[in-house]
Amino acid sequence: MFAKSSYINRRQALVSLLRASGSSGILAFAGNAECGMSYRDNSYKFRQDSSFLYFFGIDQPDLGAILDLESGESVLYADDAGIDTIVWTGSLPTAHELAELSGISKTAGFALFEGAIVSAKASGRKIHCLPAYRAEHELRYQRIFGPSFEPSVPLIKAIIQLRELKSAEEICEIELAVATAHEMHLSAARVARMGMKESQIVGKISEIAQSAGGDLSFPAIATIHGETLHNHFHGNELKEGQLFLLDSGAETASHYASDLTTTFPISRKFTAFQRDMYEITRSAHFKGVEALKPGNAFLNVHLASCLEIAEGLKSMGIMKGSAQDAVAAGAHTLFFPCGTGHMMGLDVHDMENLGELYVGYEGKPRDPRFGFKSLRLAKAVQPGFVVTVEPGIYFIPDLIDLRESEGAFKDFVNYDKLRTVRSQGGCRLEEDYLVSQDGSRLLGAPGYPLSVTEVEDLRGS
Amino acid sequence: MFAKSSYINRRQALVSLLRASGSSGILAFAGNAECGMSYRDNSYKFRQDSSFLYFFGIDQPDLGAILDLESGESVLYADDAGIDTIVWTGSLPTAHELAELSGISKTAGFALFEGAIVSAKASGRKIHCLPAYRAEHELRYQRIFGPSFEPSVPLIKAIIQLRELKSAEEICEIELAVATAHEMHLSAARVARMGMKESQIVGKISEIAQSAGGDLSFPAIATIHGETLHNHFHGNELKEGQLFLLDSGAETASHYASDLTTTFPISRKFTAFQRDMYEITRSAHFKGVEALKPGNAFLNVHLASCLEIAEGLKSMGIMKGSAQDAVAAGAHTLFFPCGTGHMMGLDVHDMENLGELYVGYEGKPRDPRFGFKSLRLAKAVQPGFVVTVEPGIYFIPDLIDLRESEGAFKDFVNYDKLRTVRSQGGCRLEEDYLVSQDGSRLLGAPGYPLSVTEVEDLRGS
Repeated sequence: MFAKSSYINRRQALVSLLRASGSSGILAFAGNAECGMSYRDNSYKFRQDSSFLYFFGIDQPDLGAILDLESGESVLYADDAGIDTIVWTGSLPTAHELAELSGISKTAGFALFEGAIVSAKASGRKIHCLPAYRAEHELRYQRIFGPSFEPSVPLIKAIIQLRELKSAEEICEIELAVATAHEMHLSAARVARMGMKESQIVGKISEIAQSAGGDLSFPAIATIHGETLHNHFHGNELKEGQLFLLDSGAETASHYASDLTTTFPISRKFTAFQRDMYEITRSAHFKGVEALKPGNAFLNVHLASCLEIAEGLKSMGIMKGSAQDAVAAGAHTLFFPCGTGHMMGLDVHDMENLGELYVGYEGKPRDPRFGFKSLRLAKAVQPGFVVTVEPGIYFIPDLIDLRESEGAFKDFVNYDKLRTVRSQGGCRLEEDYLVSQDGSRLLGAPGYPLSVTEVEDLRGS
Repeated sequence: MFAKSSYINRRQALVSLLRASGSSGILAFAGNAECGMSYRDNSYKFRQDSSFLYFFGIDQPDLGAILDLESGESVLYADDAGIDTIVWTGSLPTAHELAELSGISKTAGFALFEGAIVSAKASGRKIHCLPAYRAEHELRYQRIFGPSFEPSVPLIKAIIQLRELKSAEEICEIELAVATAHEMHLSAARVARMGMKESQIVGKISEIAQSAGGDLSFPAIATIHGETLHNHFHGNELKEGQLFLLDSGAETASHYASDLTTTFPISRKFTAFQRDMYEITRSAHFKGVEALKPGNAFLNVHLASCLEIAEGLKSMGIMKGSAQDAVAAGAHTLFFPCGTGHMMGLDVHDMENLGELYVGYEGKPRDPRFGFKSLRLAKAVQPGFVVTVEPGIYFIPDLIDLRESEGAFKDFVNYDKLRTVRSQGGCRLEEDYLVSQDGSRLLGAPGYPLSVTEVEDLRGS
């Protein structure tokens, strides 16, 4: 938790932004509850809602908070623990002590939170709430608003305006998360051996993330099937000649995230084909980074990477024709069907629950085409944004078969050649960047070794 | 997943039990959904509902199943994946292929599941559902039944009757889970060093559980504050002279659980006081195990352990008077405020979501007194039950202060002596047992070394 002044300042800034936009009423923030795995009391590791963390900092279940736009007053809804709870969980801070950490002087019991919203609503005040992303939130909103709940667009926009610009203390936390992720990725590249199960790599990186006092920032993608974009199955055995793709980040104890992807050969050396695939991915990565500068749309970062992938695959004889035209026609989406990056902060896809329409597109509609609709971020970037850059090349047999059967992209794809490499898997390289005044700065130092020689040296060590 | 015959047989047995009890209608089983951590798509590791796993075996989200008590027919509600899904998650089995693994021939889309229940209800048939333990279930039941949902007691009772008796293939899985937990506990006792953080121990044991293809069976209790019964904070530093309590188990890839607790000195040797505390706990553990035999109530296992703890604390000068009378008066609950064990299987507290009233008490009311109300299992045990035995001694400062201020247990507690040892922490020893024809059998071999000498040897290694 940061000093209470951070939370006081953030709340004041939020209230100011909403007042300036002509909003009135109350802002109601619901913290997250525990979620039972296979029964109520065996719960997943508690994760607080990120906007609740941003404005209040308090990391425990069953909390609510209300900010009054007119009076400017904040109230924290929290309970004091009784002896039955203390026996099970140890001494806990009182509601008043919790509120004090966050710079709030007024508290009330958690059971009064919903009633306070209902009363404000009954007295004709406007209620601003965030979108529901857990069933517990849907239930609560149903109780308060009936079936007609709508999240507050002014609140969403104001929060994005604040959270997308990372402060110095937030950058420090993200750097810590990146440092832990570097350790995870280096360790994976050092220990991975033929005959191991993917789950053993996941075990190793989990140990590192948990030992650092946090955890993985999302379920690891640790796979010999890198062509599967969000592959959470970890039961395969590592075999000679395959590529291993690790997309994994750490979350610090204070819940800031990192997100890195590395790809390495399970043998000590890349095959010639894998080396080409890797070099094109690496080049596409740095073309994207070059385009990452204030005022430039992240869509252009994406397109710069896409173009480099199309050029590279053309040099390998897999694509053909004009790379520019291929990207305009979407032919690259056969090999790179997703986006080049996303914002990162308290969420690994930062603020995703507030809606990518607002976070990534300033409320404007997104390109609905396959391969473009998955781009989470398209709007112009500003100094203070933290984003990932993560292009990749993927040979997805089901997708190749579908597109060939549709007769798609015949002018840009050499299907005869493609059929011979359809089992080559996937390759992705991802790093985290802070947009600066004149470009961007790589987060985390000294950085994971990305060149073919460096990766092969690491595999040989 | 077991062979399909296991699931077919379990479903047939369930239908037979319910028909025999005079029930009619349909049994509706809802699988679990994904649960987002801080936004929808960043979900916790998926955990299927255990009764769904028991009767259908299929380990993926968004499934439903209906068993018809009249026709005996089973229908699996599941969707086939489209290309958008396959790109993100890889090739997936079709609904029909999934059903086939479970020995079911009829499938329908998942979207039809709720409608099928609503139709059956509208046509006057009795609907049997299990209790909700996640908000997603509450939402579903609200949509189907409105606010008046009641789980089916006949279904609950029949499922407990089946799941409480473990089959040979289930015992094999539990033995695997215990073997992994032994490795976790041995590793922790070998690596724990002064100056480490508790989170480093958690990282190490998580690695072992995940590398084995599963995970921890519940959030680890790994703490220098063993007196806190469910302590999930892992930020403390290990210091000279403290006891370390590790309560942690593994879940296999097929979701069977183990649950062990060990306690060891952070220094190489126990202090004299810690050794006494440890020996009493160990003795209470084996007194409980002695009482674990078919037909004997688990309440008697609990009372045997309580009596031994009271005798032991009396020998240490902390308790006084008749140990029998002390236990009858509940004075031991100042040091052992919880229960001696619980059933274990697909859930670490097996079937807890079906209600401890039925699982542990045959539907009869439980003793409401502090220290007794936390006993999860009291009924007579049968061959085939798998249970934990886990007595402990806990010095809980808040509880000691409360009871002394109330003037409680003055005839049985030497508060002057107790005040001098109030910071000694906690000690618990837990193993997993299968109730056999003539007593019980320890699960997992060769077993964790439990004697003082063995533990000190391990710490010195």
